[in-house]
Amino acid sequence: MTVVEIRIELKKGVADPEGSNTRKTLESLGFEGVASVKTVKVFEVDIDAPADRAAEMGEEMCRRLLANPVIQNYKVTVR
Amino acid sequence: MTVVEIRIELKKGVADPEGSNTRKTLESLGFEGVASVKTVKVFEVDIDAPADRAAEMGEEMCRRLLANPVIQNYKVTVR
Repeated sequence: MTVVEIRIELKKGVADPEGSNTRKTLESLGFEGVASVKTVKVFEVDIDAPADRAAEMGEEMCRRLLANPVIQNYKVTVR
Repeated sequence: MTVVEIRIELKKGVADPEGSNTRKTLESLGFEGVASVKTVKVFEVDIDAPADRAAEMGEEMCRRLLANPVIQNYKVTVR
């Protein structure tokens, strides 16, 4: 069993309203010096395949389902 | 400037409907051997503070805003 971590981030310049609202809320709670908050989505996928094959499958999952290539970058890591 | 990564996961035994629906959809797309999919939420917080202070702030952010201790675990890492 291989655990593949798929990390999906917004591309530079794409608005991250959840992140910016979280930053504002942290500020209003009294946290000082919070310059920015960025949200990232992670999927941990358990795949019954050897590491190299599982990594390939992770890439394909991003292309076909998990990521939106217009606004998101993804990174697949085998753990 | 310190970048703090805050990783928020569901506790063991808590249902992860987004993860299980993603698993089913991957299966229906023809991906074989996908045993489970777990979703994780990550916040990358840029804090204008030294690393040790930023890590403490990250822990406090989880306790006060970002995590729900009933169903979630969190981990704060300085990068």
